[in-house]
Amino acid sequence: MSESTTKPAKAAAKHVHHELRNINNSAAYLLPKLQAMKDAAPGGHLKILDVGAGSGTISTGFAKLVPNGHVTATDLKEDILERARTIAEAEGVTNISFQQADAYKLPFPDATFDVVHCHQVLTHLSAPSDALREMLRVAKTSGGVVAAREGDLETECVWPPLPGLIKFHDFIVRAMKGAGGTSIAGRQLLSWALKAGVDRGQIEVGFGSWGFHEADEKRIWAQGMINEVRHGRLRQAGLRFGLTESDLEEMSTTWDEWAQKDDASLGMLQGELLIQK
Amino acid sequence: MSESTTKPAKAAAKHVHHELRNINNSAAYLLPKLQAMKDAAPGGHLKILDVGAGSGTISTGFAKLVPNGHVTATDLKEDILERARTIAEAEGVTNISFQQADAYKLPFPDATFDVVHCHQVLTHLSAPSDALREMLRVAKTSGGVVAAREGDLETECVWPPLPGLIKFHDFIVRAMKGAGGTSIAGRQLLSWALKAGVDRGQIEVGFGSWGFHEADEKRIWAQGMINEVRHGRLRQAGLRFGLTESDLEEMSTTWDEWAQKDDASLGMLQGELLIQK
Repeated sequence: MSESTTKPAKAAAKHVHHELRNINNSAAYLLPKLQAMKDAAPGGHLKILDVGAGSGTISTGFAKLVPNGHVTATDLKEDILERARTIAEAEGVTNISFQQADAYKLPFPDATFDVVHCHQVLTHLSAPSDALREMLRVAKTSGGVVAAREGDLETECVWPPLPGLIKFHDFIVRAMKGAGGTSIAGRQLLSWALKAGVDRGQIEVGFGSWGFHEADEKRIWAQGMINEVRHGRLRQAGLRFGLTESDLEEMSTTWDEWAQKDDASLGMLQGELLIQK
Repeated sequence: MSESTTKPAKAAAKHVHHELRNINNSAAYLLPKLQAMKDAAPGGHLKILDVGAGSGTISTGFAKLVPNGHVTATDLKEDILERARTIAEAEGVTNISFQQADAYKLPFPDATFDVVHCHQVLTHLSAPSDALREMLRVAKTSGGVVAAREGDLETECVWPPLPGLIKFHDFIVRAMKGAGGTSIAGRQLLSWALKAGVDRGQIEVGFGSWGFHEADEKRIWAQGMINEVRHGRLRQAGLRFGLTESDLEEMSTTWDEWAQKDDASLGMLQGELLIQK
């Protein structure tokens, strides 16, 4: 009902929670600008950089949107880019390339891309305005756009207020900070852009949201959290932070319980930033 | 940049924080449905009820949108409807009427209205699903729509994290509960609709947002909070809750400090509910 009501991604990208992300539920704030730039570009040839693309479900969506353009998708981790290649191939997308890269040191010349985008990347960084400055460097000097959408983890809310999920929320806030990121990214995008040296007049900034009410989305999201807590990085972080096996199991079973409730919901604020160079 | 980035209302409704609300920043989730119903209605004659309309800035927007229809705006408090009448007159809107009414006992026959809407009303009630059931009663049985948008106060976040604003946030959460409402309304809209007896298939529900980054909006919002804390109901509530004059003054001066910061932001999740009868 609004751009922030999430819809599951399709085809190859159906059963992993990160892969619920698509351009409509995660980059709607950028799409009107992108469409206008595409219409104005000779032959519709736009060059887009997606920084920290992860499994690339958003990058692949951009590539479909600019069939005469090209998307470069980077991530710090090579293994997730393998998954992104698989998804792009399954979707029949060929105008995309993948490259391992550090967001602080992008391996591209100044003023290379029309659009430089990231989603849920700055929140993981200890110096987000440095990464923004680097994204600005590789965006074209006249007409280039830098776009970022970052969750504000502390605003994540769930219904009903099951104790296992409240424990989980407190834990992921600690884990995000413990890994060098911030749990309050969304609210800081304007601050980070100003720190990166951008004039206020070049900045559009607002809030969107991310959330679930539909049974299929809730099942995928809960299963993603359960996998993380039982087998993934959240398990490792939890044990480091002194959580017990019993704590972790309580969180897992509560996510399962939550996903089965008709009236369950989950929501989170997302900061949305557009910088016009 | 998204429907949830707020823009100030104009003309008569410029300097009071409640009056920042308009159909674009507060009812965007409903507008496509409303437009479709207007197009389908003979002569565009839609009957809209706005429950708990307050100063009526949203109601007046609905009335402009359906010039051949009619809006009935109610509120529990007669004095705020006087302000709403003034605003409607200043905007040149005549297809609107105002009526004191209790949301639990709406003084209208069953199946009277095409659209029954409320904004930031259920959050103040101790039995929100009873009010929803009453709104459903007065909506037309075939094709009628009930729409609600409610903030989720506990997700309200500000940047920078000034101590006076953190105190303020904790206080308004307590004040909302103390007055019989809930500070976690937005996440419960689906739950309330199901409790009101609505089939899941009739419900569309999601999250939007409310927020400020622009200097003029921040100034109006901060001044609204300062007025409430210095002279309004929040002052009375604060003193009842054991806050001191010094606490209240700290909150006021911090809002003023916040509004002057270029990098300041404020955001909050909003639940958005559409029920199709």
